[in-house]
Amino acid sequence: MTINFKQITIIGVGLIGGSFARACRNKGVVEKIIGYGRGEKNLRRGVELGVIDDYSLNLEKAVEGADLIFLATPVEAILSTARDMSAFLKPGVIVTDGGSVKGGICEQIKNFLPQTVNFVGAHPIAGTEKGGVDASSDTLFDGAKCIITPDEDTSLEALKTVTALWTILGCHVFDMKAEEHDLIMGGVSHLPHVVAYALMNVIAKLSNENRDVIQFSAGGLKDITRIASSSPGLWREICIMNKEKLIKLIRDFKASIEEVENFINNKEYDNLEKLFCSAKEFRDKIK
Amino acid sequence: MTINFKQITIIGVGLIGGSFARACRNKGVVEKIIGYGRGEKNLRRGVELGVIDDYSLNLEKAVEGADLIFLATPVEAILSTARDMSAFLKPGVIVTDGGSVKGGICEQIKNFLPQTVNFVGAHPIAGTEKGGVDASSDTLFDGAKCIITPDEDTSLEALKTVTALWTILGCHVFDMKAEEHDLIMGGVSHLPHVVAYALMNVIAKLSNENRDVIQFSAGGLKDITRIASSSPGLWREICIMNKEKLIKLIRDFKASIEEVENFINNKEYDNLEKLFCSAKEFRDKIK
Repeated sequence: MTINFKQITIIGVGLIGGSFARACRNKGVVEKIIGYGRGEKNLRRGVELGVIDDYSLNLEKAVEGADLIFLATPVEAILSTARDMSAFLKPGVIVTDGGSVKGGICEQIKNFLPQTVNFVGAHPIAGTEKGGVDASSDTLFDGAKCIITPDEDTSLEALKTVTALWTILGCHVFDMKAEEHDLIMGGVSHLPHVVAYALMNVIAKLSNENRDVIQFSAGGLKDITRIASSSPGLWREICIMNKEKLIKLIRDFKASIEEVENFINNKEYDNLEKLFCSAKEFRDKIK
Repeated sequence: MTINFKQITIIGVGLIGGSFARACRNKGVVEKIIGYGRGEKNLRRGVELGVIDDYSLNLEKAVEGADLIFLATPVEAILSTARDMSAFLKPGVIVTDGGSVKGGICEQIKNFLPQTVNFVGAHPIAGTEKGGVDASSDTLFDGAKCIITPDEDTSLEALKTVTALWTILGCHVFDMKAEEHDLIMGGVSHLPHVVAYALMNVIAKLSNENRDVIQFSAGGLKDITRIASSSPGLWREICIMNKEKLIKLIRDFKASIEEVENFINNKEYDNLEKLFCSAKEFRDKIK
């Protein structure tokens, strides 16, 4: 499938939006790329770097004439942006996003976008929380995974186009329900972050009540708590957006920790070791 | 303080015991080093490598004439070894250990060792669970921390000697109660291991009930679960030995996770973000 968009508009020209623009240009799938965002300095820098051709601080102007719109704002701003731009969209335009939580977005965005617009939810699993167009790169999506979350209302044509687009940009594309996406990302990403934050706070308390305990830690603690350095604002929003799945996973995790606690308390040490063994066996598969 | 032992006997010539022997020889604090262990092949290898001068498979022979005995067996074997060698010790001998849990050992070893023997508990924080004399190195203790846990029965003379010895071997030596040691190591090492195992099992279950979810994980999951690859047998023993402190810490951790859960459930998102911020602030101090 060859793809050629006359105009792509990118809402939020940061790491993800900027890298998407760069890859689209490099792969020759677009003639003109327009950026929209709140920070003019960042957008001007995007033009300077050749990431976008032009920008507008006016949403109506920015989306005017676009064939594809990529919503690359922080996850909590995706729905409000969809609402704000809904009156200005060309019929037949494809709207896609890069949000790391999909259920709420894919369900609710239908309330905002006109029927003449084709929305396809996407989540390219790439990048860090480093922001700004300066952090964007030509190769961010090379070999990355991109999950696309269509539902029964998704236009088959638009789904094919978005799938082909992300594939051309270098991604392995996976197709699943938004619900499944949120459960899986809840497990492999959101729960671990919450656990790292909670663990760090226990150790902070221990350190306050005793001497500086961190000096006695080894590499293990450093690794296990590294993601507790992630942006609190970002993770607040992800917790809000993926509330239902995350609460379920936190409960599963509490049950898992209680299993350990009970085995230790009841001196069921063979069972304790079995539990450690099964965890190790699974961990050893992670490359 | 200059130190010169005629004979040091090392019980368990693995990573820790072997590295201790190498450092003692390099620093010139000993004339003869005797090894004891269960695996003759490993002991023979120790002689070949020049780590020990000789070995015995007979505990009585091995400790005969020793001025200092270093118990470097797995933590669960320290007390039984002390008991087994107790009848053969030279009056005035210093006995020290490298166990990563101290409370039980320092308290109970008094029941086994004669009064003429000077025990000083120690925990050099170094090394991994890699075993065998082949893993030992000359520099394992260079710049490492060593915690020494004297109590009211510890001979001041022996404490001075053991402190000086570990200092000469390259360690920064800290002095604290066995109880405090176990609480601190429980926090910075034992609890994180238990958390990593429990988290890994939740994700394993998720993976069994869905598709292979690990393929959608990023570096964060890899880091946070790395220590779930540690030896289940070793961690079973540490959980047994540090039961009381670990259960307390697991409860603190459950309360910390429940705080997150409740903030999400009750939509107290400002409090949630504050909790993430304080964790991040503490984490950012870890070099």
